[in-house]
Amino acid sequence: MISAEIISVGTELLLGDIVNTDAAFISKKLAEVGIPLYHQTVVGDNAERLESAIRDALSRADILIMTGGLGPTCDDITKNIVSRVFSAPLTMNDDAARTIKAYFDDMGRVMTENNLSQAMLPEGAVMLENHHGTAPGVRLNKTLADFDGEKCVIMLPGPPRELEPMWNESVMPYLREISPYVLYSLNLHLYGIGESAAEAVLRDIMNSSENPTVAPYACEAEVRVRITARADTLEECRNVCRMMSDRIRMTDIGKYIFAESTSDDEASEVMVRRMIDLCRKNSLTVATAESCTAGMIAARIGDIPGCSDVLEGGVVSYSNEVKMNVLGVSEDVLQKYGAVSEECAAMMAEGARRVTGAGIAVSVTGIAGPGGGTDEKPVGTVCFGVADEHGCVTSTEHFGSMKDRGKIRRLTTSAAFMKLIRRISEKYRT
Amino acid sequence: MISAEIISVGTELLLGDIVNTDAAFISKKLAEVGIPLYHQTVVGDNAERLESAIRDALSRADILIMTGGLGPTCDDITKNIVSRVFSAPLTMNDDAARTIKAYFDDMGRVMTENNLSQAMLPEGAVMLENHHGTAPGVRLNKTLADFDGEKCVIMLPGPPRELEPMWNESVMPYLREISPYVLYSLNLHLYGIGESAAEAVLRDIMNSSENPTVAPYACEAEVRVRITARADTLEECRNVCRMMSDRIRMTDIGKYIFAESTSDDEASEVMVRRMIDLCRKNSLTVATAESCTAGMIAARIGDIPGCSDVLEGGVVSYSNEVKMNVLGVSEDVLQKYGAVSEECAAMMAEGARRVTGAGIAVSVTGIAGPGGGTDEKPVGTVCFGVADEHGCVTSTEHFGSMKDRGKIRRLTTSAAFMKLIRRISEKYRT
Repeated sequence: MISAEIISVGTELLLGDIVNTDAAFISKKLAEVGIPLYHQTVVGDNAERLESAIRDALSRADILIMTGGLGPTCDDITKNIVSRVFSAPLTMNDDAARTIKAYFDDMGRVMTENNLSQAMLPEGAVMLENHHGTAPGVRLNKTLADFDGEKCVIMLPGPPRELEPMWNESVMPYLREISPYVLYSLNLHLYGIGESAAEAVLRDIMNSSENPTVAPYACEAEVRVRITARADTLEECRNVCRMMSDRIRMTDIGKYIFAESTSDDEASEVMVRRMIDLCRKNSLTVATAESCTAGMIAARIGDIPGCSDVLEGGVVSYSNEVKMNVLGVSEDVLQKYGAVSEECAAMMAEGARRVTGAGIAVSVTGIAGPGGGTDEKPVGTVCFGVADEHGCVTSTEHFGSMKDRGKIRRLTTSAAFMKLIRRISEKYRT
Repeated sequence: MISAEIISVGTELLLGDIVNTDAAFISKKLAEVGIPLYHQTVVGDNAERLESAIRDALSRADILIMTGGLGPTCDDITKNIVSRVFSAPLTMNDDAARTIKAYFDDMGRVMTENNLSQAMLPEGAVMLENHHGTAPGVRLNKTLADFDGEKCVIMLPGPPRELEPMWNESVMPYLREISPYVLYSLNLHLYGIGESAAEAVLRDIMNSSENPTVAPYACEAEVRVRITARADTLEECRNVCRMMSDRIRMTDIGKYIFAESTSDDEASEVMVRRMIDLCRKNSLTVATAESCTAGMIAARIGDIPGCSDVLEGGVVSYSNEVKMNVLGVSEDVLQKYGAVSEECAAMMAEGARRVTGAGIAVSVTGIAGPGGGTDEKPVGTVCFGVADEHGCVTSTEHFGSMKDRGKIRRLTTSAAFMKLIRRISEKYRT
């Protein structure tokens, strides 16, 4: 069984200036392709410690993924140390040199000698093209007597916007080729049920199923059930996952499932995409009226490319004046029930729908903290409204006074999407 | 010279399900207190590999910081392995047991025997209180014959909202005590100049100054110059940094500095806080009119607790209908100049100011991509307006068609704050 390790190189990681998202990205991708990973290591731009980390990793694993330290300055030593450990001297790679020159031409910038040093690759290495920067990636396979067999090292630049496309284009196809089987995951997205409650329902299935495996895990605003199949073909994996998904949909947690995603999707945006899809299918445009979230709901819709056929816009009504003057909330309601009330939420949603001309509008008004809570309406109390041609529904949620402002606002945003999803599913199902 | 290492324990890190933000947080804090860190390691919930990682780390460093694996289930093995390596058997810690019981009482939940296992600490250990979860932290100092001297291990729970407060309350004071000196940083925040241009101006200062050190680094929307001093007292550090800051302000990059922060601040929110401060000082309220950012600017203001005395609200005018009907942009302007024009931006800013009653309003309208670009107005073109009692100014920025939608929208958001900061500084300086 082949296994991999990750070594990330960079003093900025050891100083905490950047978070090692590369390691998480690569780990997830290795899991997708079924290659086990038992260690991630971070070391700085120091030759001795880097060499020692490489030797430790090669003594344990067959594939070594290295990130960072491929830049043009003298700090960037990854290739040099790999060259030494693999006894593969650096030589000028013509393809790499041509690609780097072309990159500078395209940007209209002058190439320096430093930059050309990036085209020096270990003898026998394969260049991995970088369409978003100057540092080419490198793959080198070689039988090393010191380590008792063939080892593979893959070196990638640190910036995620360079690394991630290179991984998908050049590394993933190679790993799929050498991996003994295909691994595939299907995520069921649940809202309104906790992880342990979902686990209780699924326990028998989880215990009795080895392929696919079934595991729930908690995300901030939802629970995901991940179904993972291992088979000889992708087709077979998909079938196995599909059958398990159907089986889970028939259990008591079926009603909490609002979307599915595969491991390649951006699972984090599934909720927003589901809402947009439902709007699109029903020719509905959407608008928002936001108090405590102050624009987060609209901005999340705006994150999705091509949202303009669905998103009309919205009103951030942080002050009571804007609630009254722009959205038409009555002073009476504000005085009698307060801004954090279902009465106010209803007028906000109706107002947003009216002034934007949208087919459906969602409103939120709540207390995100840390101040502003009362005994009756503690921090974490949020009122929601959804208005459409059929009328307006309101609700109140309590996200807990222990949570921080950011979390309460994020949970509020997710709840708003779920309220739109449920309203459209109920009233418009096409 | 003492040094530290970090070992993060958790299979979820090796699967890429979560990003190791704990390691970045701890690394930054160790840098602040002047304790060098040369390795970060991640291993799974596997006894053999964990013990081996601990032994490797202790052979290199004096202080071992461990995160994760302190939960109540049988997967959680960190304390057991540390107990073995340190020959310090786990015993029931009465303080820890009391604290865990009190935590469950407070939440109105029933404690299980599993949870009480979290109160078992290695003999001789100090409990570190956890106010946000059930797993207490642990610090253990012991002279180990195997490793030639006194070693310190600090174990903390993995969830950042538990770990970070515990670090600040219990770990940082201890590290400050054992660190031979005080390290202190002051950040100068620059906008409108690149990292290499800033470095060119600062090169002589950087080369001639050893204490404090001066280093520029690029963040997404700004450049920071970090001044770091090392001295016997915090007072002395502050003075040294202050003098260097004054010196840098007199160079050619002085005019790009818009704010300062210390290492303890949330440096990432400095721009928004600076804008809010300027509004507050000049009794100005603020509003937004957002097209391509769709609420991100208002939401960033809403991130800051206590923003309600400054933020009136805003309008997300994604569609032309909302630009016309809510903000009063004329159809004429839209037809003649298009939605992405300074003419439209001016009417959006004026409209936002009018309908919200705010003292100052900022507007953005642009092409975030990936679609929608033309030869004349490529992806990345964004028009801005700022309206106040003195009138309205507009401008156009080009954030580059190579960048992704998310990045263009984040750069647009930062530019909007800078335009507010510069307008207020120019017209209102109190």
